[in-house]
Order: sequence, then C-alpha cells, then structure tokens
Amino acid sequence: MLTGQNGYLYGRGTTDDKGPIVATLFAIRELLARQRSAENNAEAAGVDMPNFVFLYQGEGENQSQGIRETVEDNIGFFGPIDLIFISNNYWLGDTTPCLTYGMRGCLEIQIKVEGPGVDLHAGVDGGAIREPILDVVALVNRIVDPATGKYTEPAFYDDVRPVAAEEIALFESLEFDVEAYKATLGVSTLLPAFGGDKAAATSVVDVLMNRWRFPAVSVTSIKGSIANSSIIAKAAQTELTLRTVPDQSPAEIERLVLAHIRREFDALQTTNRLSIVVKSNVPWWLGDIHSRYFQAAEQALEKHWKKRPMLVREGGMSQITTFLKTTLKAPCMHFPMGQASDRAHLQNERIRLRNLRTGKDVLVDFFAAIAQDTPTEKPRSD
Amino acid sequence: MLTGQNGYLYGRGTTDDKGPIVATLFAIRELLARQRSAENNAEAAGVDMPNFVFLYQGEGENQSQGIRETVEDNIGFFGPIDLIFISNNYWLGDTTPCLTYGMRGCLEIQIKVEGPGVDLHAGVDGGAIREPILDVVALVNRIVDPATGKYTEPAFYDDVRPVAAEEIALFESLEFDVEAYKATLGVSTLLPAFGGDKAAATSVVDVLMNRWRFPAVSVTSIKGSIANSSIIAKAAQTELTLRTVPDQSPAEIERLVLAHIRREFDALQTTNRLSIVVKSNVPWWLGDIHSRYFQAAEQALEKHWKKRPMLVREGGMSQITTFLKTTLKAPCMHFPMGQASDRAHLQNERIRLRNLRTGKDVLVDFFAAIAQDTPTEKPRSD
Repeated sequence: MLTGQNGYLYGRGTTDDKGPIVATLFAIRELLARQRSAENNAEAAGVDMPNFVFLYQGEGENQSQGIRETVEDNIGFFGPIDLIFISNNYWLGDTTPCLTYGMRGCLEIQIKVEGPGVDLHAGVDGGAIREPILDVVALVNRIVDPATGKYTEPAFYDDVRPVAAEEIALFESLEFDVEAYKATLGVSTLLPAFGGDKAAATSVVDVLMNRWRFPAVSVTSIKGSIANSSIIAKAAQTELTLRTVPDQSPAEIERLVLAHIRREFDALQTTNRLSIVVKSNVPWWLGDIHSRYFQAAEQALEKHWKKRPMLVREGGMSQITTFLKTTLKAPCMHFPMGQASDRAHLQNERIRLRNLRTGKDVLVDFFAAIAQDTPTEKPRSD
Repeated sequence: MLTGQNGYLYGRGTTDDKGPIVATLFAIRELLARQRSAENNAEAAGVDMPNFVFLYQGEGENQSQGIRETVEDNIGFFGPIDLIFISNNYWLGDTTPCLTYGMRGCLEIQIKVEGPGVDLHAGVDGGAIREPILDVVALVNRIVDPATGKYTEPAFYDDVRPVAAEEIALFESLEFDVEAYKATLGVSTLLPAFGGDKAAATSVVDVLMNRWRFPAVSVTSIKGSIANSSIIAKAAQTELTLRTVPDQSPAEIERLVLAHIRREFDALQTTNRLSIVVKSNVPWWLGDIHSRYFQAAEQALEKHWKKRPMLVREGGMSQITTFLKTTLKAPCMHFPMGQASDRAHLQNERIRLRNLRTGKDVLVDFFAAIAQDTPTEKPRSD
C-alpha cells in the first residue's frame, strides 16, 4: 500500500518505475493545458506540442517478453519517432540529478564439461578418471585472471574505444564517494584501474570507469551435476557474463570468445567433452551527449534543480534500449528520476516527492524545448 | 517385497546386507547343531565353538550415528574380542569370491572464500571487485592437477608405502576387465598410472592400484552463494575429498593439507577471506593377509567355491572398521558375499541364492577353523 512519510512515497515500484511514469503523464497534461490556454487567449504565446507515443510493459523482470513483437507488429503506429525517452533508472547519488548516456552490453555464455556417463563414488572410482569439475576449474582459470578480473585473451580488448580527454573530464566531474561505495559492498579493496598495475583502484575515475566504461568478466555460477562430498560429478558447468563496451562488435566478440574458450579447452588435453551455449548477446548503448536532446535536458535539469546534472553511464545493459534504437531508428535518452538510495526492487522502495514534482517540471520544459525544434515538426533554425 | 527369480532373491537390502547377516546366522546355527550332535554322540569328534558377539546397526546411511556410543558404553560386553568380522561389501566381479584386506581413508575438507557483504549485480558492480568464485577456482587449480588427478604438494605423497613385489603379484592375479570398467563408467580413457607419465592407464594393476592402493583427490562440489547469470556471488565454496592410504598419518596429512591450502591462498594475494572446515578424517585400514584368519578364510573359500579367492582392497572407507579395530583391539576382516552385479542400494538389488548357501558353508568351516586355534580359547599349536 502506498504510504507517505518524511517527504517520500513508499511502495513497491514507486521509483522503478511507476513514479516516473506518473510524473511524465502529469508533465504532458500540463503541456496540454498550456496549449489549450494559449488557444483560448489570442495574446498568449503559442505552445509547441510534440506527439507522444506511449509504450508501457510489465515484463521487465521477465526478459521483456512480447515487447519486440508488439513494436514490430505495430511499427506504423510508432514511426516516425524522433526520440526514445526512457525513465527507469536512478541517480548516481542522492543530491545531484543525472542523465544516463551509456550502458554496457552483455554476452552471457554457459560452458559445460561432460565426462563419465554417471556420477561416480569418490571412494570407489576416485583416482581412476579425469574429473569434469577439475576441467571446468582449469578452463575458467585460463580465461579469467582473478587478480585483475580481466579476460586473458588480449584481443578481447582490441576494439575498446580509447579514452578521450573530454571523457576523463566528464568522469572527474562526477560526485561519487569511493569509501562509501566500498562500505556498501562490504569490501576493503577494489580492482585496480583498467590497464593499470595491481595497486587497488582508489580514484573515482578508476572505479566508475571499471564499472561503466570498460569491459568486465564475471563468473556468475559454477557447479557440478551433483553436490555430495562422496560423489564425483559426471558433468560440471559455469556461466560467464562479459560486459561489452564501445566499440566492441557484439558479433565479433562472441566469435572471438567462443574460439578462445575452445582453444583453451583443447590445451587441457582432456577426453571430457565441451559444449558452449550463448544465452544472450545484448549490444552496448551510447547516447550522443552533444545532441540537442541531451543539451535541452541538461538545461531543463539545471533550471529546476539549480545545479548542473551529472552525465553518467551504467554498467548493466538494457536489452530494450538497443532494440528500440535500432527498430525505430531514433536516438535514446535515459532520464533517471529517483535517488540512488531509493532501494529499487527491495523492501521499502520509495521515491522522494520533490523528485517527482521537480521531475515533472523538468519534463514540461524539456518536452516544450525539443518540440520547438523537432525536425518532423518544422525545420531547425540553427 | 522379497521376490525369487532365476536363482536370485530380489529386494532392498538383499545383498547389502540382510542376505549376508542371515547367512551368518544360519552358519552359526549349523555349528551349534553340530556341537549338540557331538555332545549326544560319544563317538563323534568334538566341535570347537567360538563365542559370538553380534553388533547390528541400521544407521549405515546416516554416518552410523550412535554406534560408537553403543560400543563404548558396553565395552565389557564386547571384550575381549579376537576378530572383528564384517560382511557388507561385494566381490570384484561375478565369478570369483573375494576377501577384502584394505580400504582407503578419507579426509573431507570444505573450503570457503568470502568477499563482499552482499551478492552483487554483475552489470552494476562487475569490474569493480575481486570475485570470490574466481579465487576458489584459482585455489583449486593450484592444489589439484586436472591432468593427473594428483595433489600438487609433493609432500602429500611422502609417506605412501612403497609397492612390494608381493603386492604387485597380488594385483596381477586379479580378474578385472578394464574395457568393461570403462564402458560402465562411460569414459574413453582413465587416469595414467600413479607416478607414471600422461599416457592413460591401461593395465589392470594400474587401474586397480589407482582406485585402491594410492591416494586420490576429488573435488566433490563447487558452487557460489547464488547461481544467477546476473549476479556476482558474495562467497563461493568447494569440497575436497582426499583418499588416504598406508602409511599416511591422517593427522599429519590433515596438518599438511590445511597448511598447503592456506599457503596457496595467500599466494593469490586477495583480500577475500578463506575459511576451511575439516568435515571428517577417517583413517585407512589394512588387514594382515598373512594372519591365520585370512588363511583360514582363503582355505574355506577355496574348498567350497573350487577356486582360490581374490584378495582385494576397496577405494572407499568404512569409518566403523577403524573404530572397531582400535576400540576392541582386534584385527578386522571384510568378508564380501554378494556379486559385483548385485546393484546394492539401487532398484532391483539382489543376491544369488548360491552365494548365500555357499557363503553359509564357507562360514561354518571358517568359524570352526578359527575356533580351533583362537588364543583365548586354548594355546595355539603351531
């Protein structure tokens, strides 16, 4: 049940993302009211009104099932689109508004090694056969370096876009408390700077670039076909999650990684059998912060929050962002509305009333601004 | 329900080990009948009758809970004991009777690596922290060689008893079909001979010594605190089962292995935290095949089966064997009665009627023979 307390609304989905949805609808209602008011008052200034096409889904926790088919089957209803506006993430902290301009891609791979036809007793058969778990361990050890967290095939990093001076300045401008982040995670050290030595990363730039701007590899599961201290598992498997970034080609990376894993497995010289399944391969997304959309958004945010917004990225991917961008042939914007401490998806999820109200005001100005110079409405004046 | 078919009795526990229990009781009944008959007939030869102390338990699948306390609390009832007779295992094959003279010990260790205070999102935090799963993988990779299946600390093998010529002859005498064994396991190759090169083991001696006579290491489970392709597990753990053999000291091996694991973990230079739990450390057992008990058993088996029995070991341990041997200060014998194909513990468990009947006849002669020269009954004549 929605509960108000200390300036916050508490309830499941308040910040992710029923709150932002409602704020957007209120912003549009206000724009429509202004337009009607202008039409009724010959002396008032005209109001530019964009066309909005709404796309809501309730399957975000379920791989967004059906959304692709819905868009593809109704493409005439959606197009032409100038901008894809998404608001389902959060600020980097609690005090400075953010605009999200990039997300990493994600290649998920399941690796399985099969050996004997049956699980075996470690006493009866231990010492006789080569164990599939040990092959999985040896393989993982060959493809990810635990000390740096890096993928061991250097070619994996060949196409990572070099860091531009402008980008470093952008990261340096971010307000982020590394010690608080470590405390939240419950760790005493973080991985070293990407490409740096083994000294732990301590700067904001290092930490945030590791999380948003550079690729990462995680071993998200590892297990045998049976977990019993007397039994040798007949098979074992592991799952790798590789976060990809500009300008890695998802298809090329997939080819490279699969070939590399097979090569390293061959080097183990085992008669156990390897199989690899690509579970998903979602492309990264990078918005154009120099576009008129980002600039209009920055101006509207600064006007209402009285401070410049932070331009941030995210480490996780949004499958739907790249799909919409590609299918509707339009740029994307992620417009976060809630605070980092909103506890999205958790108990006591909340959103601050001020964020909803000011968010609505920001959107009114943002939508009005981009309506003025939307190419499909009229030629741009600049 | 017990069902007879084609000379076999089918039913849960028929071979492991209700059948052998009943055969033993029938053998003793026959001995008692002979004794009574001799007492009633002045011309008949006297019958030596040993004293029997029975110890049955129904908790074999449950770490034999309570059996230690039962024996210790009733030690006056049990002692003095000349021989501990156990019949709960099976022949090596289906045609030649066996006597078991050794079992490996077992050191079970649980290794855990803990990192962050919470499971983390691989997209949000991947690239920032050192993952516990990777530390477990690196550690396992450092302590077990997948290609040979050997423990990497050479000192682990220092006290393994050198193979005597007599022992090789004993292994060479065993009837064992390596190709059939591989087919049963569903593997195309077996681990190389202990201490040999990487060419696969093919001889009976190599395969059986690997399973019974030499130590083995198995990684019997490995897993993260969560298995989800989006999540970095905050902790990961693995279980090692080390099978130990004469003359490895269980206590020394435990000290050596724990110190070695800690040393290899330190070499990883991670800030994640290691903990090790010793789940059990059961000593190996080796009987004396030159004792009068083994010789009496061999003679009785040969008389009734018309072939020499095979002297075999087993790879798995029997916790209770070493406990009884130590507590009751008497030698042990494992007297298998059923065939290898009896499918103990499985659907359609069975025992051959001939094995029960001939087994009973063997035991009558065996018990009579050892009663004749049991030191507590009368001085040995040899």
